Amino acid sequence: MNYLSMSKDEIADELQLMKQAYQTYQDKNLQLDMSRGKPGSTQLDLSEGLLTTVISNDDCKSLAGLDCRNYGSLEGIPEMRRIFARILGVDMSEVMVGGNSSLNMMFDTISTMMTKNINGDTPWERLDKIKWLCPSPGYDRHFAITQYFGFEMITIPMNSDGPDMDKIEELVSTDESIKGIWCVPKYSNPQGITYSDEVVRRFAKLKPLAKDFRIMWDNAYVIHDISEKSDRLLNLMDECKKCGNEDLPIMFTSTSKITFPGAGVAGMACSEKNMNFFRKKYSVQTIGYDKINMLRHVKFFGSYEGLMEHMQKHRAVLEPRFNAVVDKLETQLGGLGIAKWIKPNGGYFVSVDVLEGCAKRVEKKKKNAGVILTNAGATFPYGKDPKDSNIRLAPTLPPVEELEIAMDLFCVAVKLAALEKLA
Amino acid sequence: MNYLSMSKDEIADELQLMKQAYQTYQDKNLQLDMSRGKPGSTQLDLSEGLLTTVISNDDCKSLAGLDCRNYGSLEGIPEMRRIFARILGVDMSEVMVGGNSSLNMMFDTISTMMTKNINGDTPWERLDKIKWLCPSPGYDRHFAITQYFGFEMITIPMNSDGPDMDKIEELVSTDESIKGIWCVPKYSNPQGITYSDEVVRRFAKLKPLAKDFRIMWDNAYVIHDISEKSDRLLNLMDECKKCGNEDLPIMFTSTSKITFPGAGVAGMACSEKNMNFFRKKYSVQTIGYDKINMLRHVKFFGSYEGLMEHMQKHRAVLEPRFNAVVDKLETQLGGLGIAKWIKPNGGYFVSVDVLEGCAKRVEKKKKNAGVILTNAGATFPYGKDPKDSNIRLAPTLPPVEELEIAMDLFCVAVKLAALEKLA
Repeated sequence: MNYLSMSKDEIADELQLMKQAYQTYQDKNLQLDMSRGKPGSTQLDLSEGLLTTVISNDDCKSLAGLDCRNYGSLEGIPEMRRIFARILGVDMSEVMVGGNSSLNMMFDTISTMMTKNINGDTPWERLDKIKWLCPSPGYDRHFAITQYFGFEMITIPMNSDGPDMDKIEELVSTDESIKGIWCVPKYSNPQGITYSDEVVRRFAKLKPLAKDFRIMWDNAYVIHDISEKSDRLLNLMDECKKCGNEDLPIMFTSTSKITFPGAGVAGMACSEKNMNFFRKKYSVQTIGYDKINMLRHVKFFGSYEGLMEHMQKHRAVLEPRFNAVVDKLETQLGGLGIAKWIKPNGGYFVSVDVLEGCAKRVEKKKKNAGVILTNAGATFPYGKDPKDSNIRLAPTLPPVEELEIAMDLFCVAVKLAALEKLA
Repeated sequence: MNYLSMSKDEIADELQLMKQAYQTYQDKNLQLDMSRGKPGSTQLDLSEGLLTTVISNDDCKSLAGLDCRNYGSLEGIPEMRRIFARILGVDMSEVMVGGNSSLNMMFDTISTMMTKNINGDTPWERLDKIKWLCPSPGYDRHFAITQYFGFEMITIPMNSDGPDMDKIEELVSTDESIKGIWCVPKYSNPQGITYSDEVVRRFAKLKPLAKDFRIMWDNAYVIHDISEKSDRLLNLMDECKKCGNEDLPIMFTSTSKITFPGAGVAGMACSEKNMNFFRKKYSVQTIGYDKINMLRHVKFFGSYEGLMEHMQKHRAVLEPRFNAVVDKLETQLGGLGIAKWIKPNGGYFVSVDVLEGCAKRVEKKKKNAGVILTNAGATFPYGKDPKDSNIRLAPTLPPVEELEIAMDLFCVAVKLAALEKLA
């Protein structure tokens, strides 16, 4: 029965019931973590071969003949660049391989532009005001970077096929202080939305007033399908090249959720002009990133095809977890009129919009019953969800049986928060 | 016979001889690299155990119980922090472990201060002028960082016991735009000089006009002895604490020349106040560095004592190479009055001062005969040696037999350049 059409008495009765249900969960003394997009140990176990991949003194050269143990190779070994090129759909020459964190490469990208302008103009640190577009709900660690550098973040609403392009086009064409945008174009964090062809084409055709405007295209989940029906993302770089806009995007990805979050390999890709700018900085910043880890990854995957087979193993682990989460939402919250969600075909999250003003309350209730959620509000700039409505669920870490308990509790908490609001 | 007291005829005769000698080397078609401080393959082979160290799914937790495969642990795993703490002579809580490059950590340290002032004052990028002290000859990649950020680099002469402290004290106490200094305090690059106790104490007592002045204490060769007689470096952090100056130094080291330059582990250490400042940035920049590589290192070393034993194996490889270089210098250039050098007890280089105006000529002659040296001038800010006299020899990469040929050629080139100047 839809909560929104209940009478006062019905609400009071239901509230009483849910309070009792909630109490039973509190008594269970749960300790579950659904806060971060962390792979569970079953997933980590899939990459044990990376730990045990045999590299010896006689077998530590890259395809280019370079000893991976020694200094050199600023852009990474060719075979790892090639794999990232396949993943991102770009040319190998457009790829640079970094350390273990694409977040670090994104931070470094913006940090570089703070003290050197990519077009030779005024460095961003010397400008009075920088603004940045933040499709939201989005990734809290993206927003933390732009907040750290003091940018004014502008929330861009997310539609079912990607960010609101009307708003983006209008803003970037009229405000020169807008210097960039965060995007997770495939299986977006947290909604699992893949940008439509039209959205990608409109990104490629953007004509920002700021010539140093850049699209931070974080393709973190580009090959992270979790269902039979996988999404297809149009290639932004190809589209950009068609309209002479290839300097617009800077692309990122990593193996954090392919092998190990703590010991993977990250990569970025961009136009030659952009890469020349960043390479100049990287050549001062380091002599090169960890080539032995790159070599381990290449040997472990065997090939791009081997990597894609490996992703099927992740899917086998994750699909039941996402199904468990969405099943619980459908059976327990379906039709009540108090929550909306999208069933994603990939990525790491399920995003739920509860009644306005209820997200923080739901988070608190779960915490008090021993289940940690991502902080309510974290999916918006400055940690402030204007509607206090969005909740990010991360189903990857707990095993299915724990997940089901956590989701039962979640649904009770959502109901309780809604009833308290309606009462 | 001292070249400087030769007659014109004697010089002409000797010049003729040396030209012939040089020609014989040109005919050999050598291809040797003495340009960079790269370990040779014999040294790299010493750490094969790091490649083959067994880590399994059941054995990938840090002492803190954290799964090293997954996200987390911004400051690095405790056992690796402890090793760096022993190496640097600081408390474990003062250590942060980074990626594979201490150069990267140094770059990041300065980069951080470009956009945030460590004392909350104006970020360096917004200041009209930043000056930086550069004891020289020094490390070219240090100078490249301060040049990249547009600092005015001030050359500080190196004495036999470290940088000229009179000059440093005078400059930092009178010029607020001087924000820091590069130091390689033990087995300095390239001279192999270890700072005396007095120099370290004077550093600890510095009272810079700029409150955001920092000593970049790059202890790259802290345990890199190459002879029976090892140098002892006074602990700067201890001395700083004695006079309430513990915020002054930021210390760096790495395993680049202990295990693998391409796949080692780097670390930094500083006061709690400084670390709070940098941690705030690192917490936005990354979720954490490669903990599996840290764990591998810890398992490979076994303990700090195991690490020190490992260094003895490096010494066994390097000592004959350094002896070969210095023997050649002594037997072939000794007493000629045209070159000066110091026999180092550790580190990665032998620094030779040839007659003024001759370094570039020597480098070119060696290059034309197939032996690459570090660019003459590279050991000074902006790549300009005011006397064109300093040459950095890197004896670690070529095997002894090749090194001896390269040194024979070097000595001929030094004689030839001197004779051409004197003629």
